[in-house]
Amino acid sequence: MVVSSSTIDLLVKALPHGRVITDPDVMDSYARDRTFLDPGAPLGVVLAAGRDDVVETMRWATEHRVPVVPRGAGTGLAGGATATEGSVVLSLARMAEIRELSPADEIAVVEPGVITADLDAAAREHGLMYAPDPSSYEISTIGGNLATNAGGLRCVKYGVTRDSALGLEVVLADGRILNTGRRTVKGVTGYDLTGLFVGSEGTLGVITAATVRLRRAPLTAPATIAAEFGSLRDAASAVSAIIAAGCQPSLLELLDRATLKAIDDWRNIGLEPSVAAMLIAQSDAADGADAARRMHDLCVEHGASFVAVSDSPAETEGLIGIRRMAYPAKERLGSCLVEDVCVPRSALPDMMTAIEAASARHDVLICTVAHAGDGNLHPVFVFDHGVPEPPKQVWDAADEVFRAALDLGGTLTGEHGVGLLKRRWLELESGPLTRDLQAGIKGVFDPLGILNPGKAI
Amino acid sequence: MVVSSSTIDLLVKALPHGRVITDPDVMDSYARDRTFLDPGAPLGVVLAAGRDDVVETMRWATEHRVPVVPRGAGTGLAGGATATEGSVVLSLARMAEIRELSPADEIAVVEPGVITADLDAAAREHGLMYAPDPSSYEISTIGGNLATNAGGLRCVKYGVTRDSALGLEVVLADGRILNTGRRTVKGVTGYDLTGLFVGSEGTLGVITAATVRLRRAPLTAPATIAAEFGSLRDAASAVSAIIAAGCQPSLLELLDRATLKAIDDWRNIGLEPSVAAMLIAQSDAADGADAARRMHDLCVEHGASFVAVSDSPAETEGLIGIRRMAYPAKERLGSCLVEDVCVPRSALPDMMTAIEAASARHDVLICTVAHAGDGNLHPVFVFDHGVPEPPKQVWDAADEVFRAALDLGGTLTGEHGVGLLKRRWLELESGPLTRDLQAGIKGVFDPLGILNPGKAI
Repeated sequence: MVVSSSTIDLLVKALPHGRVITDPDVMDSYARDRTFLDPGAPLGVVLAAGRDDVVETMRWATEHRVPVVPRGAGTGLAGGATATEGSVVLSLARMAEIRELSPADEIAVVEPGVITADLDAAAREHGLMYAPDPSSYEISTIGGNLATNAGGLRCVKYGVTRDSALGLEVVLADGRILNTGRRTVKGVTGYDLTGLFVGSEGTLGVITAATVRLRRAPLTAPATIAAEFGSLRDAASAVSAIIAAGCQPSLLELLDRATLKAIDDWRNIGLEPSVAAMLIAQSDAADGADAARRMHDLCVEHGASFVAVSDSPAETEGLIGIRRMAYPAKERLGSCLVEDVCVPRSALPDMMTAIEAASARHDVLICTVAHAGDGNLHPVFVFDHGVPEPPKQVWDAADEVFRAALDLGGTLTGEHGVGLLKRRWLELESGPLTRDLQAGIKGVFDPLGILNPGKAI
Repeated sequence: MVVSSSTIDLLVKALPHGRVITDPDVMDSYARDRTFLDPGAPLGVVLAAGRDDVVETMRWATEHRVPVVPRGAGTGLAGGATATEGSVVLSLARMAEIRELSPADEIAVVEPGVITADLDAAAREHGLMYAPDPSSYEISTIGGNLATNAGGLRCVKYGVTRDSALGLEVVLADGRILNTGRRTVKGVTGYDLTGLFVGSEGTLGVITAATVRLRRAPLTAPATIAAEFGSLRDAASAVSAIIAAGCQPSLLELLDRATLKAIDDWRNIGLEPSVAAMLIAQSDAADGADAARRMHDLCVEHGASFVAVSDSPAETEGLIGIRRMAYPAKERLGSCLVEDVCVPRSALPDMMTAIEAASARHDVLICTVAHAGDGNLHPVFVFDHGVPEPPKQVWDAADEVFRAALDLGGTLTGEHGVGLLKRRWLELESGPLTRDLQAGIKGVFDPLGILNPGKAI
């Protein structure tokens, strides 16, 4: 690879004026995601305004063998968009047009820079919704959601981003344009390339448009419950009981005491000393009030000390607001290593116990929230703000948590992706045959290996 | 490729006694699917009793460069399991064990030969269901459903087979065993290999086990309506209205007059001369009776001459039974070329009109049923039983139908797969870049090209 300052100049000349940033201070903010990871220094940052800019950038990158790191809003939690030394960062954030929204077909065609919440809001004007709602949905982009196959709070009922992606427009490593999938809700013409790109973290191509499925928004306000437990295991058991009873919640979130305490210290939610865990559940079904009542009873049966039930939108928003405070509250305590293990739902109590054990053994503060209905847990390992890298005991505790998840039949990442952070554990889950096949697929789409090298696989 | 009778003898010796059939008369029934296509003569048919037989067969096939045609129950409608000359047919039908059914995790681990309806029945003992229900679900296998990404009647609400597949055990072309996916409902570790195998029609590997998602079975009997229309276009408009009104049917099927007449001629359903189309819709939601009432009203608004509403299981079964008679009723009339176009839902009326026009222009009997809620239509082109191949006017009419579907933003196949039958139109939809990339992926998994050659891509 021969890259000189004149190489980036060729890209600056090839693109319309103002598209490429080379000022190191400005570049730095485009080189990071929301992890603590220190990026390498990129050659430049492209602020693509349209597909032609992406095509031009990829042609240039292929010609000069320059690595390209695609990014949306940079809200990732696994280092998938962390710039590597000598790369070009390709920001899709300015490509933010909703090209089409068809209520009759219940689809939208969107550019990758559209903020997830903006698409949802546009859909709601027609009685529809865009279901995937990662916790970052007010600041993250559809392109980033597609790259990581993002989940969210509602996916316990409505599925992950993959389940809403029907077709993609992709610029390949050499600048060619590929259209995958379709506008129809079903289709099986050839291999599922759409599914291959979703979750591939920008290593196979650059998504420049997506046809996504919209769903009917519920007609009534959801019914919500919040239950407090004196034991984390009891709360996890209540989750299993709610699923097994067929309550079909549209949201089922579990917060441990460490998380609740971080929120209480910040915003004073009146946390009682006896509360070890809180469960927040919601049903948006037509019989939601009935489902909430059943979830209430199951929480009481499983030892809840207090359960609130509400169908008032204001109260509901307050309860969901507590959940949404979880991550910012932890960021106040220190730097955060955010993990994303997912286990079979019945293993949730054991996984919670394993996290508590790892916290005690390695003397590391771990605050856990879980999309409990999916068995998807986010143990957040907190360490000193001043330290550039997580100290050894944090990695040791994380290692213990990952191995416990795999032992319980789980996976390393439910919805954040592998990025850079989870690569060291990848082979534990996938093994060498999977690695070789994935490398083979990568070679088909990106034979020069210039697309987000070192990420995901 | 050097294949002699001694080559197949080596396979006979490598496998336990009785696993390989070489009697031509017996082989013939394993060489066909449900299409009219004449197969080539296979060297032998392997009746695999377990994964080891599959591994042994693939090792032998790789060593001797023999094409392998995997098959389930042979209910396919696109020629995906049609034997090719000199191939070995690998039947998975005897691998029919439900290895595990976990109500707590809402998953099952099944072998490929399990009949779809059997898995559903096993799940229902625990209040669960296996949602995908292709019309052939009482005779087709999970393995075949996975190979074609089968849809069905319920998929308007519950999604296609892909949406229920969490992980796979696959024997690769060279006999190595690959495990994809997971037991959890979410996961994004590496590329989505599970999704790549689903719908690949046996061209990338042989599925020997699948971890599938089960769903809660509805607690109440579904509410069903059947509406008769004097115009096919009116019926199609009612479909669009039902979707747009957010009724969320769990089944929404449209039958045209030619189909109804075929059923009436066979079983006398009292078809009135004025009926041009029938719509059958169902809601299994908690407020299903209310949804059925709204669907009733929308049908009346859109010109229905008669609408029956029922929540009696016996009456419901009778109405769904009419739908299930559609294909056997047509097979009585002649040989059938069954097509499977899928269009955006709003294009359903135009697609129906295009099918009627093609029927008239080419003087071909086309009977159409549609999974109308998905925009997925099955126009069945009927021709003389005595003719080995569809006559030219049938292909011309089919060509017109395919082109109309693509013009309307649709796809060649919603749920049956490409097989052999649709390959001649494949490039119209996919183009050369997609073809090249798919060939590249094929090369990663099956570099010798021995897995179901000539199918799907």
